[in-house]
This record gives sequence, structure tokens and C-alpha cells, in this order.
Amino acid sequence: MSSDPRAPQDGEPAGPPSDRTRLRRKPKRGHYDRATIDAILDAAILGHVGWVRDGQPYVTPVNVWRAGERLLWHASVGSGMAMALDGQPVCVTVSHVDSLVLARSATNHSVDYRSVMALGIARRMTDEREIDAALEGLVEALFPGRWATLRPMTDGERRATAVLWIDLSEASAKVRDVGLIEDPGDETWTTRAGVVPVRMVRGEPEPDAFVPEGTPAPEVRLP
Amino acid sequence: MSSDPRAPQDGEPAGPPSDRTRLRRKPKRGHYDRATIDAILDAAILGHVGWVRDGQPYVTPVNVWRAGERLLWHASVGSGMAMALDGQPVCVTVSHVDSLVLARSATNHSVDYRSVMALGIARRMTDEREIDAALEGLVEALFPGRWATLRPMTDGERRATAVLWIDLSEASAKVRDVGLIEDPGDETWTTRAGVVPVRMVRGEPEPDAFVPEGTPAPEVRLP
Repeated sequence: MSSDPRAPQDGEPAGPPSDRTRLRRKPKRGHYDRATIDAILDAAILGHVGWVRDGQPYVTPVNVWRAGERLLWHASVGSGMAMALDGQPVCVTVSHVDSLVLARSATNHSVDYRSVMALGIARRMTDEREIDAALEGLVEALFPGRWATLRPMTDGERRATAVLWIDLSEASAKVRDVGLIEDPGDETWTTRAGVVPVRMVRGEPEPDAFVPEGTPAPEVRLP
Repeated sequence: MSSDPRAPQDGEPAGPPSDRTRLRRKPKRGHYDRATIDAILDAAILGHVGWVRDGQPYVTPVNVWRAGERLLWHASVGSGMAMALDGQPVCVTVSHVDSLVLARSATNHSVDYRSVMALGIARRMTDEREIDAALEGLVEALFPGRWATLRPMTDGERRATAVLWIDLSEASAKVRDVGLIEDPGDETWTTRAGVVPVRMVRGEPEPDAFVPEGTPAPEVRLP
């Protein structure tokens, strides 16, 4: 046995990092290898952070980005969430819908999707250089090459920004990519059935009034 | 005073339904009227349900749909989430990203977005006819006119499906739609700045092998 429960053994797929991340239903949809998890996280703009106060769960949408083994997000230091979370258990979930699946029965309707659920203890960065590097990572993740072109961050801006993160050691991915699966016999129904792909696209960049005419559009990694 | 704290008074905007749904930071982004909340929910395919087990929050992506004053989602009765949630506090959040906002400073980067956070006690439907009507609502919300064309649901399928809901009485919307806001003086930086719209689109429907050639594509409300 390896000490890392996810380490693949002789070509077998990686296993879940903990019992609470193991997919019980539809276990074939579960993936625990870092390549699958990282690809889903790196395609995201938004993640949803779950946290608890007075027994009530809250789910806050945030920009997420990955730095190696960590999943990061940021918030204003004025936000209740940011200040409450340091040291608290959280769950960060990232989801992409890839297709609507239209079956001939209500039950066999579905969506193809990719999602990651990461559990961990939220930590807030305190080191200035670490915060700078993290925010550079966020900008570069979405807009490669952009950080060096920006007006530098001021001390006040840095102090107003909380960067939070969790370790990705307890994460799992769930992927449905099988399209339409009907019950035998249902294909005789004349209902139109199949798959309708959906995806995020970006429109034409809209430069502000101070961008000189003819300036090339900024590079955007997503979508 | 109205007994409904959200009821607009003499043209004033609706107020928050509870203290824990009131936006403290950037209160101008907060909206508490049903029209704004409903429009954001009705544009969604996915919502993220936050729930708690043993002090650990979990965030599960689900298909959500609205039926009047209720926000609904479904799950297999085999799923741990579905069975654990009846009577438990949950938070369901729906988010749409509309634009990436590229500023000349790191701090002024942002996204335009619309989100709803709904707090409540999850309830599971038990009445058969209520479950049927709810699932018809889900199919019709995404695919108008489709329910009547489907092979009818079997008793076994109905028993395998848990329909959960929360009341929308404690919900708030948060909307950022102001695009780029720079600090005075930053416009002299030559960084390319502005807004990059993003949106969900659907691709060409891919009918399965049993759909006769020439059959019109199914109606899909989203995106």
C-alpha cells in the first residue's frame, strides 16, 4: 500500500483521498487523479465556497484559481465571509455543464458535466509577498501576460484584499460524459431525443474610451 | 409597515427578508424584489446546494428550477445528500457570470455577474401527484412542451426520485453590472482595459439514431 491513497498502483486508477470524498452513487463517475481534478479547476472562472455560521450553511460564489496543490480565492477584508473563514472547514465546488441530455422518458433526462468538490480547512494568507504572488497567479491564469502591464498594487489595495486557500489533498472529481442512455424499448417513442451541447463563450472585447484605436484585444484564457 | 418586509413602500426598493440575507458590503448590489430574484433563478440550469454533516459543509451541484415561491431540485433516493437533507438548513446559490472586467490595476479587475442566495429548511416532497407536477415543471422549464411527448414515468422511477425544495422567503440577489471602474489617473496606463462579455450558448442538437431524419430540433429554453 502506498501512503498516498490516491497514488495509482500498477496502472489502476487513483482512489479517493478520504472516505468522505468517495463517490458512493455511480462510482464510475468518480475520479481522484490530480490531472482530472486540475483540468476541471483550471477551466473555471467561478467556484462556490460552502461555509457554516451558527449551523447555517452559506454558499458564496467566488473567483477561484489553482496554485499547485492549493485552490485559492479572494475577498475584500470587509466581507464577513473572508474574515470568518480562516481556520474553518469549507467545501469549494467547481462545476461545468457540457450538455443537456434529452431522453424519451423524464427519468433519463440528464446533463453531462464535470465537477470537483474540495474539502479542507480555509487558510488566509498573511505574508505580503505570498499575497502578491497569489494575485499575480489569478490575473495570469485568466489573462496570460497581463500582470506585468498593470499599474502596480498599492499597499492599501493589498491590505484590503484577503486571499484564502485550501489544500487540494481532499478533492474528488465527478464527470458524466456518456450522453443519452435510454431504457430498452423507449426508442420506439417518437419524442425527439439526443444531446444539446452547451458551453461558455466569450464575446467581442469592449475596450474602454482610453484604449487607443487599433490596440489588439487582450489575451483571455477563458473560455 | 407591511407584514412582508420585502413589500415595496411607495416605490421604494424592496428590503432584505432577514438580517442574514442583507448585503453588508456593496449594499447597492443587493436586490430583494421577487422579479429580480426570479429572473436570475429562471435563467439557471445549475444551482449549488450547501448543506452540513458533522460540522463539515458540502456544496453539491444540482439542477434547480422554480415553482412559484419554491426553489426545487431533485436527487436519487440513493444519494446521501437527498436523504440527509429533509428538515435540515441549506443554502442554494445560483450564479451567472456576464463579463470579465479587465482594469489597468489588479484590484479593479472584476466580473459582472448575477447571483441569488436562498436560505431555508430543505423539505422532501412525499405526495405522488406533487412529485409528478414538480418533475413536469422541471422538464417544461427547460424544454417547453416536452412533458406530454415523453414515455410516462413508472412507479419505480417515481419512487427512485427525491424532489427537494426550499421556500424562497429568505432569498437575496446580488448583481454587478457596472463594467469597468478605474481609479482616477489609471487611464494613462497603456494596458488594454475594458470588458469581455461571456455567456452560455448551446450548440447544434445532436439527435440519437432513432430520431427520423428531418425531425425538427427540440425546443430548449436555455441558454
